Amino acid sequence: MNFRVRAATKEDCKDISRMIMELAVYEKMPDQVEISHKELERDGFCQNPFFQCLVAEVPEEQKSKEGFTAVGYALYFYTYSTWRGRSVYLEDLYVMPEFRGNGIGKGLLCKVAEVGKKEECVRLQLSVLDWNTLSRDFYAAKGAQDLTVSEGWHFIRFDGQNLDNLANEAPKD
Amino acid sequence: MNFRVRAATKEDCKDISRMIMELAVYEKMPDQVEISHKELERDGFCQNPFFQCLVAEVPEEQKSKEGFTAVGYALYFYTYSTWRGRSVYLEDLYVMPEFRGNGIGKGLLCKVAEVGKKEECVRLQLSVLDWNTLSRDFYAAKGAQDLTVSEGWHFIRFDGQNLDNLANEAPKD
Repeated sequence: MNFRVRAATKEDCKDISRMIMELAVYEKMPDQVEISHKELERDGFCQNPFFQCLVAEVPEEQKSKEGFTAVGYALYFYTYSTWRGRSVYLEDLYVMPEFRGNGIGKGLLCKVAEVGKKEECVRLQLSVLDWNTLSRDFYAAKGAQDLTVSEGWHFIRFDGQNLDNLANEAPKD
Repeated sequence: MNFRVRAATKEDCKDISRMIMELAVYEKMPDQVEISHKELERDGFCQNPFFQCLVAEVPEEQKSKEGFTAVGYALYFYTYSTWRGRSVYLEDLYVMPEFRGNGIGKGLLCKVAEVGKKEECVRLQLSVLDWNTLSRDFYAAKGAQDLTVSEGWHFIRFDGQNLDNLANEAPKD
């Protein structure tokens, strides 16, 4: 199967938003998605974008049953290690079910690595759920370390009222 | 104790670099630090900075034994959730040992939350080691969720040769 991986443009945000929802449906949590293509357009295509995105595209004659040619995406952003410097973080990697098994997921992952290396990033990081052995095996086979297993890193989150409470207790200038 | 939390400037990078090393010494891994104030200046104070930083400062008359007035820092960057949008990630939170117990760590954390809220971030996230119960309890007491415990998230990393291998296998344009 022919496919091409390219940087997303603002015009891709409706397709990306559709695939974000497909991924959430697959994960049985579609009601968790609170952002639409409008927020993606605003946050990904501004002066200091909050994220970057790659899109995997197939030729018109191989389009999906529903008529889509954008069949996968990788959404990432830059992070920073105070020990090692620039890093890239892969937030989402998705390929539509009917296009899996053609190397598109691997193509997206490798392209993120290539883009990261060009920006002098020394790490590519991501998170995965422990029950998702398919993904965990995929990354492990490519040499990734599981830092939660090997070093004991836990992922911590403040949101909602807890985040508001913190912000409200910030020292005054 | 009086202290002030303010945005770091390029001129603070030597102090931040010193405290990054102090934190690594405390964690018994000083040889892991491969970046200096030069990389911090380049990566934090460019057009699209890779990170943001806050510095906690005490008055001259309360300076440290070694004569420092910059006694803590919080280094963070913006990330993105495809379900919820803008988030802020706290990479490092540090207060010099002789200044602990004065609310400076909490002041830095709350200020990051406040800055994040101003940027419309809906989450403040960070990682912590499982043996670091002092920090885990500190965050839990403030309402943070441990997503590794509650949802099973694992932290995955590619670096070194594994990252090079991925980049080298990227599909050609």
